[in-house]
Amino acid sequence: MTHADDSTGYPAELRSLLDGRWHRIRELAREHLRGERFRPVAGLGVQEHRERVLDQITAIAGSEMSSYGFSADYGGKDDVGGSVVAFEMLVCDLSLMVKVGVQWGLFGGAIQALGTDRHHAAYLPRVMSMELPGCFAMTETGHGSDVQGLRTTAEYDPATEEFVVTTPDDAARKDYIGNAARDGRMAVVFAQLITEGVSHGVHALLVPIRDEDGAPMPGVRIADCGPKAGLNGVDNGRLWFDSVRVPREALLNRYGDVAPDGTYSSPIDSDNRRFFTMLGTLVRGRISVAGGAGSATKAALAIAVKYGDVRRQFDRPDTGEEVVLLDYRAHQRRLLPALARTYALHFAQEELVSTLHERHSGDAARDERGQRELEARAAGIKALSTWHATRTIQTCREACGGAGYLEENRLPQLKADTDVFTTFEGDNTVLLQLVAKGLLTDYRQEFGELDPLGVARFAAGQFLGAVIERTAARSLIERLVNAAPGRDDESDLYNRGWQLRLLEDREKHVLDGLARRLRRAGSSSDPQAWDVFNEAQDHVLSAARAHMERVVLEAFVAAIDRCSDERTRELLDTVCDLFVLSAVEEDRAWFLEHERLTATRAKTVTQQVDRLCARLRPHAGALVDAFGFPDEWLAAPIALGEEERRQREQRERTAAAQG
Amino acid sequence: MTHADDSTGYPAELRSLLDGRWHRIRELAREHLRGERFRPVAGLGVQEHRERVLDQITAIAGSEMSSYGFSADYGGKDDVGGSVVAFEMLVCDLSLMVKVGVQWGLFGGAIQALGTDRHHAAYLPRVMSMELPGCFAMTETGHGSDVQGLRTTAEYDPATEEFVVTTPDDAARKDYIGNAARDGRMAVVFAQLITEGVSHGVHALLVPIRDEDGAPMPGVRIADCGPKAGLNGVDNGRLWFDSVRVPREALLNRYGDVAPDGTYSSPIDSDNRRFFTMLGTLVRGRISVAGGAGSATKAALAIAVKYGDVRRQFDRPDTGEEVVLLDYRAHQRRLLPALARTYALHFAQEELVSTLHERHSGDAARDERGQRELEARAAGIKALSTWHATRTIQTCREACGGAGYLEENRLPQLKADTDVFTTFEGDNTVLLQLVAKGLLTDYRQEFGELDPLGVARFAAGQFLGAVIERTAARSLIERLVNAAPGRDDESDLYNRGWQLRLLEDREKHVLDGLARRLRRAGSSSDPQAWDVFNEAQDHVLSAARAHMERVVLEAFVAAIDRCSDERTRELLDTVCDLFVLSAVEEDRAWFLEHERLTATRAKTVTQQVDRLCARLRPHAGALVDAFGFPDEWLAAPIALGEEERRQREQRERTAAAQG
Repeated sequence: MTHADDSTGYPAELRSLLDGRWHRIRELAREHLRGERFRPVAGLGVQEHRERVLDQITAIAGSEMSSYGFSADYGGKDDVGGSVVAFEMLVCDLSLMVKVGVQWGLFGGAIQALGTDRHHAAYLPRVMSMELPGCFAMTETGHGSDVQGLRTTAEYDPATEEFVVTTPDDAARKDYIGNAARDGRMAVVFAQLITEGVSHGVHALLVPIRDEDGAPMPGVRIADCGPKAGLNGVDNGRLWFDSVRVPREALLNRYGDVAPDGTYSSPIDSDNRRFFTMLGTLVRGRISVAGGAGSATKAALAIAVKYGDVRRQFDRPDTGEEVVLLDYRAHQRRLLPALARTYALHFAQEELVSTLHERHSGDAARDERGQRELEARAAGIKALSTWHATRTIQTCREACGGAGYLEENRLPQLKADTDVFTTFEGDNTVLLQLVAKGLLTDYRQEFGELDPLGVARFAAGQFLGAVIERTAARSLIERLVNAAPGRDDESDLYNRGWQLRLLEDREKHVLDGLARRLRRAGSSSDPQAWDVFNEAQDHVLSAARAHMERVVLEAFVAAIDRCSDERTRELLDTVCDLFVLSAVEEDRAWFLEHERLTATRAKTVTQQVDRLCARLRPHAGALVDAFGFPDEWLAAPIALGEEERRQREQRERTAAAQG
Repeated sequence: MTHADDSTGYPAELRSLLDGRWHRIRELAREHLRGERFRPVAGLGVQEHRERVLDQITAIAGSEMSSYGFSADYGGKDDVGGSVVAFEMLVCDLSLMVKVGVQWGLFGGAIQALGTDRHHAAYLPRVMSMELPGCFAMTETGHGSDVQGLRTTAEYDPATEEFVVTTPDDAARKDYIGNAARDGRMAVVFAQLITEGVSHGVHALLVPIRDEDGAPMPGVRIADCGPKAGLNGVDNGRLWFDSVRVPREALLNRYGDVAPDGTYSSPIDSDNRRFFTMLGTLVRGRISVAGGAGSATKAALAIAVKYGDVRRQFDRPDTGEEVVLLDYRAHQRRLLPALARTYALHFAQEELVSTLHERHSGDAARDERGQRELEARAAGIKALSTWHATRTIQTCREACGGAGYLEENRLPQLKADTDVFTTFEGDNTVLLQLVAKGLLTDYRQEFGELDPLGVARFAAGQFLGAVIERTAARSLIERLVNAAPGRDDESDLYNRGWQLRLLEDREKHVLDGLARRLRRAGSSSDPQAWDVFNEAQDHVLSAARAHMERVVLEAFVAAIDRCSDERTRELLDTVCDLFVLSAVEEDRAWFLEHERLTATRAKTVTQQVDRLCARLRPHAGALVDAFGFPDEWLAAPIALGEEERRQREQRERTAAAQG
């Protein structure tokens, strides 16, 4: 018996909640990305895979899926949120997902965000139609995370009114650039802009890299990055520029321009602020990667849960029947908390996409603080989601044993393809440091220079309300937190307000301790400052994680509040409990060390995680069905009836032998 | 400046300690597995890769490396330990490693262990020479972990004096079988032996699967498993037998035989005991996998540490110089505790191989208890080492950023190839349950039937000395433990005796609690028994882990004791401290919950792990050099000077621009 019967009625409600605001785009993807062209295929060679993916993206280029992120003025849909959701639905092949991201997200997105009308009019239609495949040439071999350290130069020559783009040496070659090795015709090249002998920091220019026949342009050298762990359908390459000349108008000049005579001008005076403003417009890339990681995680869980729901191994001594894997507590423990966290991250992602969308589409004041918050949240969700993907897909592979190691069952590809997500579009460790820095900046702004007395004051308790800024369903969360019993009370672990407060309290305490510790560093030019900061690095990462887990929980709580169907709501409440309590369990050392939990209570948390696993086990199938991935996308035979067929044969055979 | 200067003198001493008893075999591998033939190559297609690996194994087949595990009577070397070490040295391509394991470990090893003279004389020479490539056909699609549940049958027909081998249905097809898809000519097939209408459980038979021309034998169907996540140089396949007849002598008859008239006989009466005895002779496979996982981990760490030791990113504000990655605490935290654990597991592995070797070569009484201990230890080390490999290689990949995602830098292949190690030769979760079961059996044997009063008695304290059986350097460890300050004392975290005692105490306590909990289960036929056991599964896994970590620490301590060079010893002491304290840190929730550490002391452990990372950082290069892998095997350009070359160019270029 499978447990599907217990779950009747859930999928539709659940799916509609998960599908959320951009449900139409999700449905469109489910309908259109079907058939032989989009079927996941295992074991392709690199060239074959690249051709297949090029064919797929070309096919999509005819549809609305290519246009969400672009101005309606030039044929786009002005639907930035939609562009992220459309990207994350490309689970049939993550190489296609990334190729789409390169073309319409990074390359097209940079033209849209950093260029002006002249660029939009000239290029966006051809970007959308794939007539102009392009690259986003930012990363260099020598500088990835540290974008300000890029060393490619674009020096203005007033004599010819051209920029001269130069790769000084191999450390400055552009590296890992998608669309570069084979298909790209043009690249948005990030380079230090120099005019009149002065460097104005990193800017972006459009540089043709191949002619109509696909041959490299004069002065452009292109190399293939060669085979990678995954994503081999994407043609990553390296680019060198040997005094390549492009016209003055090639500069994407929204944030900085050079007049014919070489005069530099910008709406933003500070080189530093301009740089971060420009980077900030590209935040969608990180949000998309987080969404893509979420999709891959869902697909892997769907496969592992469906297989675990039918696969049997070892007899029960009392019945002599073989036990279904998902009935083993150890198996539940591996898959169900990961599933709960996947739900939590889904809702946090949905909220993040909405925030991004609002900032773009509304006339919302583009306040710097809001932008900084968006960027910090994007960095944090990206780090959490991609690490969660890596860990969960690995677990799913192991949970499927040898079958999980076969390409036909998709898990190897999902694992290999997403592996790079933890380091591209920002290394996760660096991103979490950004998050923490943002929190510390808020801290300083609220409380001045963190003098010892001041610190003592926050510790006294006003800090909590001040720095914990809620984005999701503020009033609901306030109400829950305020209604929760005090922390010394032996209150119910299932009280949502208590849970919210526990995570808030951790965040506050970790951040408070960090601020205190960093105060010792003095000014950043102080030789000891770096050492103090360096020694606190783990603390910094913990602060960011604690912050983000609280943000994710709030998003989950807000989502449950949007659910109108009572049974579904009840189920989601249990999923949310498992998310919180397994998070608390994982970090219970911290709660014990800081006397937020007693030893007895910590053990109770572990027991309750076990209990919640048992309680959710019958609904595991419904919870993964609600992701709404067509069987065609999952593709794995072990998740789609093969195992049942074999067991049926075995039963018939055994019965015949006995009969 | 690299830190190599700080470490002069270490590598030779360290390497000789690491090379240990089978140093000659390690040196031989380093000398011989060189040149174009054995160079790691990235991005091969499946067919090309299989051909390359076949060529490699054929080349080795001429050397002594193929003969360690076999009887001297038939041209072997009677050096079982050597066969494991030779296997683990095949890091140039893990597909070669696994193919060697299939041919000489599993296939040849089964003939050696389960067969008798007639099989040895007829086949071993051709097994060693690769004239007879073979398969180890145990796993079926429907039964992997549960080997007793295999459903292939071998029914004796006295009329023709043959066995009839049959695959009843697809669930019983042999699956994931190495050498099956392309090269194998013969298979050791595990099947339920039936004679005179009675089944005697699983036995092994030699079944030809291909003729001289490589065509499948009549009645044998062979399919390719298709592309896998990794190890694509190994031709894994599926086998079906449709009433395939083999002569009576094809039965590997050391533990069970059938007379011409069909009478079954065995030196072991119980079907169950016979089965586990037969399986037990194959324990070398698990030990080899643990060794292979260790090698892959070392290679990955060597690459990541060497790159991290030169790669720079982000300026130090006070100096304006870019910081070397390994100077970041977060980077040290990712790599150095993993490196310390790799050392610990290396010494535990060496001890395990020695134990295996002694049992084979000595005239040591083949007592059942000793054998059971060996099997449990093999299962535990295999689980710990392979999970450590998966986790560490993943971390190394991330620590190398985009460069770590390129096949040319070897990490993707190391990751993909070893991924299956956690589930093949025994699923790790199942293996740890075996370990725990072994401990509980000891427990029962020591203390009878675990009546409530009895349990109370152990808890009173005699248990510790009774069940904690030391294998490594017993007297040294006793002395250290006895000299350690009591556990309530605020003693030095660096006191080795205290550390040993802490891990012993955890093991004892976890096991004690588990025994108490399982007592409630009653007899195994009780319907609730299964539920009780199932609910305790996480507890079972913890008990096994706690046991194994203690065993690993003891092996490390014993190894340090063997080191005669004072400076090297000091360094190893620090590595051992980092291993223990990072293990305690990771599980500090347990120590807090069970009042083995106070909150203050737990925080001190974290601080000391930081301090130890800083202290080992200058020696990281020396510690990975001591693994003694030739540059040719590491192969990754980022670890072999490419990054330095680029930085040199960059410096020269920058100087020229400024000059």
